[in-house]
Amino acid sequence: MKITKLAKGISLKRPLEGGNEEQLKIVRQVLADVRAQGDSAIRTYTEKWDGFAPDNLRVTKAEIEEGVEAIDAQLFADLTEAAHNIRVYHEQQKRSGYRLELADGSWLGQRITALDAVGLYVPGGTAAYPSSVLMNVIPAQVAGVKRIVITSPAGRDGKLPAGVLAAAHILGVEEVYKIGGAQAIAALAYGTETIQAVDKITGPGNIYVALAKREVFGEVAIDMIAGPSEIAVIADETAFADEVAADLLSQAEHDKMACAILVTTSEQLAHGVALEVERQLATLPREEVARASIENFGAIYIAETMSDAVEAINSLAPEHLEIVTKNAEAVAEQVRHAGGIFIGRYSSEPVGDYFAGTNHVLPTNSTARFASGLNVDDFVKKSSIVYYTEKTWATNAPKIARLARMEGLEGHARAVESRGWEKE
Amino acid sequence: MKITKLAKGISLKRPLEGGNEEQLKIVRQVLADVRAQGDSAIRTYTEKWDGFAPDNLRVTKAEIEEGVEAIDAQLFADLTEAAHNIRVYHEQQKRSGYRLELADGSWLGQRITALDAVGLYVPGGTAAYPSSVLMNVIPAQVAGVKRIVITSPAGRDGKLPAGVLAAAHILGVEEVYKIGGAQAIAALAYGTETIQAVDKITGPGNIYVALAKREVFGEVAIDMIAGPSEIAVIADETAFADEVAADLLSQAEHDKMACAILVTTSEQLAHGVALEVERQLATLPREEVARASIENFGAIYIAETMSDAVEAINSLAPEHLEIVTKNAEAVAEQVRHAGGIFIGRYSSEPVGDYFAGTNHVLPTNSTARFASGLNVDDFVKKSSIVYYTEKTWATNAPKIARLARMEGLEGHARAVESRGWEKE
Repeated sequence: MKITKLAKGISLKRPLEGGNEEQLKIVRQVLADVRAQGDSAIRTYTEKWDGFAPDNLRVTKAEIEEGVEAIDAQLFADLTEAAHNIRVYHEQQKRSGYRLELADGSWLGQRITALDAVGLYVPGGTAAYPSSVLMNVIPAQVAGVKRIVITSPAGRDGKLPAGVLAAAHILGVEEVYKIGGAQAIAALAYGTETIQAVDKITGPGNIYVALAKREVFGEVAIDMIAGPSEIAVIADETAFADEVAADLLSQAEHDKMACAILVTTSEQLAHGVALEVERQLATLPREEVARASIENFGAIYIAETMSDAVEAINSLAPEHLEIVTKNAEAVAEQVRHAGGIFIGRYSSEPVGDYFAGTNHVLPTNSTARFASGLNVDDFVKKSSIVYYTEKTWATNAPKIARLARMEGLEGHARAVESRGWEKE
Repeated sequence: MKITKLAKGISLKRPLEGGNEEQLKIVRQVLADVRAQGDSAIRTYTEKWDGFAPDNLRVTKAEIEEGVEAIDAQLFADLTEAAHNIRVYHEQQKRSGYRLELADGSWLGQRITALDAVGLYVPGGTAAYPSSVLMNVIPAQVAGVKRIVITSPAGRDGKLPAGVLAAAHILGVEEVYKIGGAQAIAALAYGTETIQAVDKITGPGNIYVALAKREVFGEVAIDMIAGPSEIAVIADETAFADEVAADLLSQAEHDKMACAILVTTSEQLAHGVALEVERQLATLPREEVARASIENFGAIYIAETMSDAVEAINSLAPEHLEIVTKNAEAVAEQVRHAGGIFIGRYSSEPVGDYFAGTNHVLPTNSTARFASGLNVDDFVKKSSIVYYTEKTWATNAPKIARLARMEGLEGHARAVESRGWEKE
C-alpha cells in the first residue's frame, strides 16, 4: 500500500456504476412485461436468465425445511444467536408518536405506523448471504411490518441456498420466492397473480436490480443504492499492524472497487501495515479481488496529530470506521460522519457484519454525511394530526386567513373562514 | 363534481411530470457549467433566465431589513406566531441515540447527529411562499443543523419577496442567495466561490429544479419530489356542505393537477357539496385553476358504511385527509395511510398549511403508504457504534468466523481471528 503524508481533501469517492443505455433498455422492457403479463413474464425471464423453468415461483414449506436440515447445526445456532443480538439492538429504535395538548382543548399529534408490506431482495450468484436476510428483515419486524417477502434467484437446480432458507426460517418469514433480477423488482413493485405488491423494496443486487429499483422508486419506496464497501481505520502506535492489515483486507476482499484506508499518527505502524497487507494478501482465497481493491483504492496516510486524523475522517465520511488508539472512545466522540464506528482493538469490523447486533447495511461513498444505516425508522412512516376546537379556530382563523391571502391563496382563506356561522 | 357509488380500487394517481429529454439536457448543461465555472456560470444563467445581472449573489443585511420593514406589522406578528407553533410541534421530534450495555463490559450504541449544512430552495414566480421557509427551516433548526442556506430566484428588479426575507429574518437565517432554477441546485450541491456546498437540499420548484434535484441525488441528499396537492374528506351527515366544498377548493386552487375527493356516507351531503363547489367556484380568484382541477381530478363517492369509506381512504393514502363525522377521532384511529389528518369541523386543512404547527410538506401521489411529511428526522443521521472487550471478543470470535466462512469471506474470518495473540 502506498504511504503518503496526510493532506487536506482526501476522498473516498469512486465512480458509481450507473449502468449503460442497453442495460436500462432491458430493465425497462422487463418492468413493462411483468406489469402487463405478470407471472408468465416472470417465468419467461427466469427460464432465460436463471436457467430453470419454475413450476412454483413460491418456495414451499418442505423446501424451507430441507434448507434448515441441510445447514450445519452449529451454524444454525450461530445464525440464531446473531438474529437475537440484531433484534435486541434494533428494538431500542422502536418509537411511538406523541400528542401535544394546546390551549382550549385542541391538540396536535404525530402517529407512527409500520409499512404494510416490504420485500427483501437477496442476491444469488457465487456467495449466499444469510446475514443480509437477518439485517434487512429484523428491523422491519421490529417496526411492526406484518407482511415481509423475500425473493432471490434460484440456482440452475431450482433451489435457493440453504443458508438463506435457514435464515428465513429462523425469522419466521414464510413468503419466499425464487425470482431474481429486474423481474423480481417488478413483481414486488407492481404485483402479479402470485405475488402481491409491497410498499418498500430493500436489499442489494447487480446492476439490473439497481437500475430496476431506481425505475420503480416513487411507485414504491426503496432503500439506498449501495456502493462498494469501504473501511477507514484511525490508529496510533498502540495498534498492531497485523490486526489493522487484516481488517483492511476484510473489506478489500468484498469487491475490486472496495476501498480501504488507514490514517495513522505512527510512521512505524504505517510501514508495518503496508508489509502485513502484502504478507496476508499472498494467502487470501480472494486475493485477486482484494489486491485490485488495495492497489486502486487502498491508501495509508500519516497524520501529524490525532485531530488532523479525525478531521480527515470527517471529510471522508466512511461506511465503516475503526478507531484503534489510546482513549479510543474520546476519539470516537469527535467523529461526526461515519456509518458504523468500531471502537478499540477487539471491535474488528466483521464483528458488526455478522453478530454484534448493529446493522451491516450502511451508507457508502461518503453519504454518511447525510444518510444512515438501515434501521427501524426505514420501515415506518409518520402522519401528523391536527384537532382544533371551535374556540381555537375562532382565535386563530383571522391570522390564518391573512397568511393565506399574503400568498395569494384566497380559497385557503375562505375555507378557514367558512366555519362558525350559526347553522345548527 | 361527479357523484358515484364507492367501488373498490379508487385511486388518486395522476401522471407525474417527469420532464422531457430537452429539459433534462438543459439541466445537465447547467449542472456541468456551474460545477466547472462556479459563480460566473451562475451569473450568466441568472441574467439569461431571471432577467437581472447580479452584482452580489448574496442578499445583504440591509436588503433583509428592507424586506422586514416592507411587510405589514400584523402579518409579521402572524408569521412569528406561526413559527413559534411550528417549532413547538417539531421539538417533540428531537431524539437522542442510545447505549446498550452488553455482558463483560461491551456495549453497542446509536449516535444521532445533525447534518452539517442544508439548503432550502424557495420557488419564485407569481406567488411568494413565506410559509415554505418556516416549514423547511424550522425542522432543520430543531435537528441542530448549524448552517442553513436559502436560495430563491429574484424578480427582474433583483429583489426577493419581502415575505420570504421576513420569514428568514424571523428564523435567524442570514445566508440567503438570489439564485433560482437548476443553477441554484448546482450551487448547493457542488459549491462555488461564493456558496459552500450543503449536504441536503429541500424545497419544491419547477420542472428544472425537480430534474436538477434528481440529478444531484446521491452527491447530496434531497427531500421528496413533491407532486400536485391532494385533499380527501371523509364526512357524514353531520358535516356542512359549504365547509366541505370550501376545503376541497382550497387544495384545488393550488394546481390544475391537484386532486380533491369527498367520500361520504350521506347522499344528501354529496349533492350539497356538488352544488356548493359550483357556487363557490364562481367567485374564486383562482377559479380557472380550481375548476380544471375539480373537473379532471375531483370526485365525490358515496359509501355504504363508514368502514367502507375508511378502507377507500387507506387505498388512496392521500396527502391531506379531513374527517368530519360523528366520533371523528375514532374514525381517525382506523386510518393507516395519510400524510396529515385533520379531525373535526374546525380543523380546516389550511390551518395546517400555515399555523397549527404540523408540517405542510407532506407525501403526495399515494406515497403516504411509505413516506412521511418533512420532520426533524430528515435533518439527522445515525451512526452505529460497537465496542467489544477482549472477553466478549474471545467468547464470540469463533461464531463470527464460522458465519464469515459460510459466506465465503475468509478475510473476514481471519480479521476477527487475528486478535488475542500474546503480543504485548
